[in-house]
Amino acid sequence: MQSSTHIQANPNAIQPAYPSILDIQAYQIGKPIDELTRELGLTDVVKLASNENPLGCSPKVTLAITQELGGLARYPDGNGYYLKQTISDKTQTDLEQITLGNGSNDILDLIARTFVSSDDAVIYSQYAFVVYQMVTKMQGATGVEVPAKRYGHDLEAMLDGVKNNANAKVVFIANPNNPTGTLLTHDDVRAFASQVDALNKSEHRQVLVVLDEAYIEYSPESNNRALLDEFDNVILVRTFSKAYGLAGLRVGYAISSPAVSEMMNRLRQPFNVNTLAQVAAIASLQDDAFIDTCRTMNEQQRRWLCKQCDVLGLAFVPSSANFVMIEVGDGQAVYQALLEQGVIVRPLVGYGLPNWVRVTVGTPEDNTRLIDTLTDVLETV
Amino acid sequence: MQSSTHIQANPNAIQPAYPSILDIQAYQIGKPIDELTRELGLTDVVKLASNENPLGCSPKVTLAITQELGGLARYPDGNGYYLKQTISDKTQTDLEQITLGNGSNDILDLIARTFVSSDDAVIYSQYAFVVYQMVTKMQGATGVEVPAKRYGHDLEAMLDGVKNNANAKVVFIANPNNPTGTLLTHDDVRAFASQVDALNKSEHRQVLVVLDEAYIEYSPESNNRALLDEFDNVILVRTFSKAYGLAGLRVGYAISSPAVSEMMNRLRQPFNVNTLAQVAAIASLQDDAFIDTCRTMNEQQRRWLCKQCDVLGLAFVPSSANFVMIEVGDGQAVYQALLEQGVIVRPLVGYGLPNWVRVTVGTPEDNTRLIDTLTDVLETV
Repeated sequence: MQSSTHIQANPNAIQPAYPSILDIQAYQIGKPIDELTRELGLTDVVKLASNENPLGCSPKVTLAITQELGGLARYPDGNGYYLKQTISDKTQTDLEQITLGNGSNDILDLIARTFVSSDDAVIYSQYAFVVYQMVTKMQGATGVEVPAKRYGHDLEAMLDGVKNNANAKVVFIANPNNPTGTLLTHDDVRAFASQVDALNKSEHRQVLVVLDEAYIEYSPESNNRALLDEFDNVILVRTFSKAYGLAGLRVGYAISSPAVSEMMNRLRQPFNVNTLAQVAAIASLQDDAFIDTCRTMNEQQRRWLCKQCDVLGLAFVPSSANFVMIEVGDGQAVYQALLEQGVIVRPLVGYGLPNWVRVTVGTPEDNTRLIDTLTDVLETV
Repeated sequence: MQSSTHIQANPNAIQPAYPSILDIQAYQIGKPIDELTRELGLTDVVKLASNENPLGCSPKVTLAITQELGGLARYPDGNGYYLKQTISDKTQTDLEQITLGNGSNDILDLIARTFVSSDDAVIYSQYAFVVYQMVTKMQGATGVEVPAKRYGHDLEAMLDGVKNNANAKVVFIANPNNPTGTLLTHDDVRAFASQVDALNKSEHRQVLVVLDEAYIEYSPESNNRALLDEFDNVILVRTFSKAYGLAGLRVGYAISSPAVSEMMNRLRQPFNVNTLAQVAAIASLQDDAFIDTCRTMNEQQRRWLCKQCDVLGLAFVPSSANFVMIEVGDGQAVYQALLEQGVIVRPLVGYGLPNWVRVTVGTPEDNTRLIDTLTDVLETV
């Protein structure tokens, strides 16, 4: 276990609120990917880098948006009343349990901001979603990264992390995990939440367990909604950016105990979810058939992709989401070579996985193109 | 001068990161205004409560949005490359000086988050935009509210606030101010920025002066863009929610020194501005004629509204924005009575101005309806 917060000397430059902010990589100003590929002379680009839905979004969304175009000068509904109603029906939760976010990133940020001070610690796993450590650093808090077990979360070690860090306030768990695709069983997650709950009670602590379910629609069996009825220290985080196909519009949400949600809503910017995102999310939740179609295609195509990896002799991590992490040798070089052929995947050197790339499961055409191009590339890289 | 941070005892409830978060009013879960007015049986409602543009947005926006509807499953451009190009051209700044926000509220929040720790202080004026004290409390920092002078900013007293609070890191100045509408002269703002700059240099401090120019399009003479060329501690904040008529889409920005922008972009969520907001903002910036029309109507109608206040014997504060603050007696009662007649204005009791309401300048029809209804209401309240 390592603390990721350390102070850098930076005497001549402008000083941030907390030294840990200097550890966050500044976002690079650069051209968008479509501009880059245009410059490379590529006209037929396949983007399998961001786990976006290759089938787009529900056709009901366009109609919902078109009907709202006359009202853009008005502020969004700050309560997201109708959207919360729809989420409430879908998840069998009360309105008071729901917190809306400008994508689920905004929710992860809001959790850290609401409950983590600069004196506190946050627990997350090696190879887990990079935003967990970013929001920790933004708060000037101490990040405790727990080594992974077979590329997934080691819940026993994470529990030790909670026990050994008296100032730990939040545990982030991605399930399925991004970028590895691993899934925790219900029983394991429940046991973890229960042990943290017992610790909270015996030691008068307040450790919140955040289950990031961004990919839940691709593995509905991993839905841990039931835990909310048992434990008031569990927060589930969901997004419309993945299976629902609304990444461009920015909407996500948390469901939790009313007390946790009430506190988060004090800090939430009331207009964080824009008007078109609200109506699009409502329309999306009313089209289960679209999600079923997406999940079925994803399962078939993920199976096909893994079979091709076997054929190519490439290791991969079995995935419960809409992406697969593949061991390709020099991940950065393979990424670059694929890019030059118009296939965009995600290199994982930033996750400490330099030999791997993450590929989003696309349409059959996308995936065939990926495997054909990868086969060529691996002969030369 | 008063410190607004104090600790509340709350031993049995869930604890936030900082006690000052308990001072922030929890956002009330409630029905949207259109649901309320429907329940009151009102079909013809005039909303003059949020300083939205009564003429909507540029007609170029609809086309720009329609062309993007096929790409909603893709994440927004995290750099906002094309939008920044357009802002850069419009404001004569470099791309490195621009920070994009999910509305300008997001920018105000980001400024506090980037530069203000829980040990620091923030200076703002009495009767200034309420978000300044909210973001201060979110950081667990100390808010220093400086008494207003004739409902506007008292820059001399604010400079004393900076001098007397060694931990002051940010000064928020709204120009024109919301909700009072007052405007500071160029010379006064420049003198203030210069004095703070001198203080920074002589005392090795880092006090940032934030000029919130949300209403700049309604009083272009108050544009303080030139200060950025002189002082690297000045941040200008702009929004597309007011004159540009895009409140529903959420987009705003800051322009500053590159060093300040670089630090803020470390904490900015890369997808904070959605795809449709980006293309809509670009289209808006390319339609100067629309802004001219809006400004001209606003000036004529604001003059008309003020004349009607004189006729009714009501005091008002001369305004440089698209709203007027009017002294009506019991502001809350007048708000309620107007609401029941289908005219929605903003009561200001939360700003410590219980005798005043703020009314947005609407179309000629809106304003006639407001004055007629207000005339009736004042006879009974």
